[in-house]
Amino acid sequence: MRKIYLEDKPLQEAQLQLCERFRFEPQVEIVSTPRSLGRVTAQPVYAKVSMPNYHASAMDGIAVKAEKTYGASELQPLRLKQNDEYVVVDTGDPIPAGFDAVIMIEDIHQVDEETVEILDAVAPWQHIRPIGEDVVVGEVIVPDHYKLRPVDLGALLAGGNVTVSVLRKPRVAIIPTGTELIAPAESVNEGEIIEFNGTVFSAYVEEWGGEPLYRGIVPDDYALIREAVRTAVKEADIVLLNAGSSAGREDYTVHVLEELGEVLTHGVATRPGKPVVVGIVEGKPVIGLPGYPVSAYLNLEWFARPLIHQYYGLIEPKRQRIQAKIGRRIVSVMGAEDFVRVTIGCIDGQYIVNPLTRAAGVTMSMVRADGLLRIPPGHLGYEQGEMAEVELYRPLEQINNTIVSTGSHDLSMDILHTLIRQENPQLFLNSSHVGSMGGILAVQKGEAHMAGVHLFDEATGTYNETYIAKYAKERDVVLVQLVYRQQGWIVPKGNPLSIQSVNDLTRANITYMNRQRGAGTRLLFDYLLKEQAINREDIYGYLREAVSHLSVAAAVAGGTADVGLGIFSAAQAMGLDFIPVAEERYDLLMSRTFFESPEGATLMKIIRSAEFADRMESLGGYSCRDSGTILIQS
Amino acid sequence: MRKIYLEDKPLQEAQLQLCERFRFEPQVEIVSTPRSLGRVTAQPVYAKVSMPNYHASAMDGIAVKAEKTYGASELQPLRLKQNDEYVVVDTGDPIPAGFDAVIMIEDIHQVDEETVEILDAVAPWQHIRPIGEDVVVGEVIVPDHYKLRPVDLGALLAGGNVTVSVLRKPRVAIIPTGTELIAPAESVNEGEIIEFNGTVFSAYVEEWGGEPLYRGIVPDDYALIREAVRTAVKEADIVLLNAGSSAGREDYTVHVLEELGEVLTHGVATRPGKPVVVGIVEGKPVIGLPGYPVSAYLNLEWFARPLIHQYYGLIEPKRQRIQAKIGRRIVSVMGAEDFVRVTIGCIDGQYIVNPLTRAAGVTMSMVRADGLLRIPPGHLGYEQGEMAEVELYRPLEQINNTIVSTGSHDLSMDILHTLIRQENPQLFLNSSHVGSMGGILAVQKGEAHMAGVHLFDEATGTYNETYIAKYAKERDVVLVQLVYRQQGWIVPKGNPLSIQSVNDLTRANITYMNRQRGAGTRLLFDYLLKEQAINREDIYGYLREAVSHLSVAAAVAGGTADVGLGIFSAAQAMGLDFIPVAEERYDLLMSRTFFESPEGATLMKIIRSAEFADRMESLGGYSCRDSGTILIQS
Repeated sequence: MRKIYLEDKPLQEAQLQLCERFRFEPQVEIVSTPRSLGRVTAQPVYAKVSMPNYHASAMDGIAVKAEKTYGASELQPLRLKQNDEYVVVDTGDPIPAGFDAVIMIEDIHQVDEETVEILDAVAPWQHIRPIGEDVVVGEVIVPDHYKLRPVDLGALLAGGNVTVSVLRKPRVAIIPTGTELIAPAESVNEGEIIEFNGTVFSAYVEEWGGEPLYRGIVPDDYALIREAVRTAVKEADIVLLNAGSSAGREDYTVHVLEELGEVLTHGVATRPGKPVVVGIVEGKPVIGLPGYPVSAYLNLEWFARPLIHQYYGLIEPKRQRIQAKIGRRIVSVMGAEDFVRVTIGCIDGQYIVNPLTRAAGVTMSMVRADGLLRIPPGHLGYEQGEMAEVELYRPLEQINNTIVSTGSHDLSMDILHTLIRQENPQLFLNSSHVGSMGGILAVQKGEAHMAGVHLFDEATGTYNETYIAKYAKERDVVLVQLVYRQQGWIVPKGNPLSIQSVNDLTRANITYMNRQRGAGTRLLFDYLLKEQAINREDIYGYLREAVSHLSVAAAVAGGTADVGLGIFSAAQAMGLDFIPVAEERYDLLMSRTFFESPEGATLMKIIRSAEFADRMESLGGYSCRDSGTILIQS
Repeated sequence: MRKIYLEDKPLQEAQLQLCERFRFEPQVEIVSTPRSLGRVTAQPVYAKVSMPNYHASAMDGIAVKAEKTYGASELQPLRLKQNDEYVVVDTGDPIPAGFDAVIMIEDIHQVDEETVEILDAVAPWQHIRPIGEDVVVGEVIVPDHYKLRPVDLGALLAGGNVTVSVLRKPRVAIIPTGTELIAPAESVNEGEIIEFNGTVFSAYVEEWGGEPLYRGIVPDDYALIREAVRTAVKEADIVLLNAGSSAGREDYTVHVLEELGEVLTHGVATRPGKPVVVGIVEGKPVIGLPGYPVSAYLNLEWFARPLIHQYYGLIEPKRQRIQAKIGRRIVSVMGAEDFVRVTIGCIDGQYIVNPLTRAAGVTMSMVRADGLLRIPPGHLGYEQGEMAEVELYRPLEQINNTIVSTGSHDLSMDILHTLIRQENPQLFLNSSHVGSMGGILAVQKGEAHMAGVHLFDEATGTYNETYIAKYAKERDVVLVQLVYRQQGWIVPKGNPLSIQSVNDLTRANITYMNRQRGAGTRLLFDYLLKEQAINREDIYGYLREAVSHLSVAAAVAGGTADVGLGIFSAAQAMGLDFIPVAEERYDLLMSRTFFESPEGATLMKIIRSAEFADRMESLGGYSCRDSGTILIQS
């Protein structure tokens, strides 16, 4: 077990070092102009013909010789004879020889088939589009190193350029490595990981204007990886190796680069994203990206994106940035640059950001993220309520049209989202899970439009009301009944350990999977323990926290827990058994401003619809007998 | 000659009316996930497998049973035996049965090949990625009507979705009409117009996510156009007809739509863009776009873009907008919504907008435009110095990196642009032509970084200095010698009318092409007239104004002028003869802040380079013997 330590090089320094080492010499290729959208010109393009290439009428009317019209006025109308003195022209027609002005149809009085009368003299060249008005022979239409837009293609063609010299797309080889990797599949065995990073890299490379060359999966074998790199640097302009970039036993990237070329950087001072390798082999940049998806995608953007833009000589566009208020405190450590994925909600006209998980392995957090918060190395983070700049991962219009829901997790959120979008596809529902208590506080602090809550009060035997009275005092809120749902023991098919009640969980051979603090299901479990006077210490696994019903069920299905408390539909989704414990009320707490907004009205309409009830009840373990009832209006 | 009048329908009303009439029923198609970038989902996508689908080590180290580590401490190190009590695992490895925690390699002391020592107890599930940490079976990965980004493809694959249901792209038929149209070509005969609008429409449709179906050119024939529309509505979701949308003799669109279906709008209250036809045929939207390129592209964006987004159920993203200061006064008329193409410069940290030509036929103005200024129907326009919102046609980063040059037109601007971009491809030079006097005023008012000037002072017999002393008093400026150039008579090959001096221009059969007011070449012409005591009235064509040397040459080449005053290279570009009149000094007036900036330094380096001199002098009619000399520093 060899121990190698990573550098802590500042990101900017590593980026600069890489870019300074390369001076690409891009190849040129000739493409048909209509197929050149988004391509980057290799040289300035000049007009070969003028547009128009003849003097053209700019109006429907008659062409005349201006000289002949002098003296015409309302008092002295002038009559002109067809062919000799005028010719009918439409917009775009060439001006016939001997004529030098156009009179609009509206200004003509037709006397007979061959005679018109005019009441005004006209100046030479009136209403004529001169040769080259649009594009003139010899002028530069677009410069070099210029990314072609739709209108540019029109001007190129207008100037007689049916083809255009563009820079060949930079070729980016993508080499996924890992013995555990399998090609994308619909089922997976233990120990297998679907190779999906390569697809994400390819898509980004394409988006940035490169040509991805996806290589097959290479097992964790030093010689094979070395061979793959050797081949790739011959065919590609940039090489990406995935996984094996850290300093572990099977992390070969740094050794391969040391053998074949030069390592510039091994480790940057960022969180996540630290274990990256940047090097050069035969004059080509080779980037060893970490295996964890989030680290990999961030490093791709830090190193591959600038290289592609440098190849083209283009400025790297920045993502849109906004100022937003920090919802939940975000702690950073000194010395590393922190990149925190965040959700962004627009609540009562104020943008609120909340951090998502910071784990580097959670691809879904990149899908869910609305933006990225960058915390400089010398900064300790943000307190709740502070303002910070975030860069957007989605269009601002979409963020503005998103209902922000938090609190407890329930499958009804997915169904609400589907039905909302069926009603109005421009509306989104973003639901995150912080438990019922967290949800109440978020609505109260103006960080969410609504929250799912199911908090049982032992003292009164009721759900939610007492908690809301206590914790959501300062804001006008509305509590709406959403569903009743069954909570119960989620156990393997056939219930092999015969679990019937909470007392069975104290047995020595039983491992429990708990929920996170603040979750209604955890409160229910604590209540069940208390009722039977069982100590938490007697439950093996009490400290393991899953953040959703599905995660609890996944743990049972995976055999690392024997039982968990959760809802029927989660057990069913994983093919598990379910022993009912209690029916609970799962409500939505909304801010009054949201409840009264058009989006709130859309949501209420859906909650009260037959379709919502049908969909929920068909999941099993749900009842919608009171859905949409207003329980509290503060 | 039939007269039909267009409506003046407010644009928003016409847009709303169109969108309200359509409820697309998009088809669904299944595509391979790696090929689905940018496609729009047809339904929510659920995870079919969990990622990881087994408990995986999150670190390189050893897997242990947490229970067995209780009691370990620095005072009481604990020894563990391989296989029975620990197993070596790397990041991503499955946790072997019987183990439930991972200790990092850094925290282990290797005693011998089969024994390790630890100094701390560990909690169950430490450093283990539980099943479903990333994606859990049954969860929604992305909603419906959702445009897929690179990271989304990764999450889809991680969740076992190797294919994805997406909305078929909306098909947009593009029918160019016009007897004068020819397919893109490198040479054009009189009366022929290259069909390029269709290419621009196709490129926009592609950019907005549609599938363009480009039809062949249809001549101006009622029956043929009707047949083309009939066929297109059967195959496409949206039909675009180009040209013939106004109310002229050969404008058939409105009549075809009236016969086959229904006309919703014929004419909107905009400038440009008024003559558009919007209708419905067999339930499909048909849009008759005007022939003038600028009108056509604006209408495409007003009507086709919203339809495509409506088809997908996507929000139409807005272009970035900025606040900018009006450079030159922009006049609008009441009652019509004005869309003014503008250049945007960043001068001393302030964005300045200046209007480009407002002619609807000038494609190049769309290429040159950095943005669009929208003036509402009830607004009279903007005075110089007022602030206004403009939407951007280019990334702001590019606008920030653009040297804004104005003043007189000279071919050296194209060469400077090429050389600047060779030195630094991220730098642009935007040159517009307002004449030398306009250029001095623009630099003086902080609307441009620099201006090309060649103003002859009769009184002193010198160039530029006296004008600058008079008109650029309030700003620190630097005057740099750029080139000497020959001005002369541009005449047809062989000089058929034997023009030798200004006196020859008064002959009855001679038509002159003049330059616009404020142009140095016009001042020179006026000086030549004055020298010979010739009246302006004696020059036929004195009032015709071309805005560049190339335009003057184009008029002579096209036979609508017999002579014009201009530079040698313009005559040469059009294969014309040139009779020298005078050598003049063409200088660059720069603001001092620009002169002292890094961009200014890059420019000075280029002006003084041998390559610039070589390129200029090889054009003929130029001398660079003093290029780069500083003439004035105020």
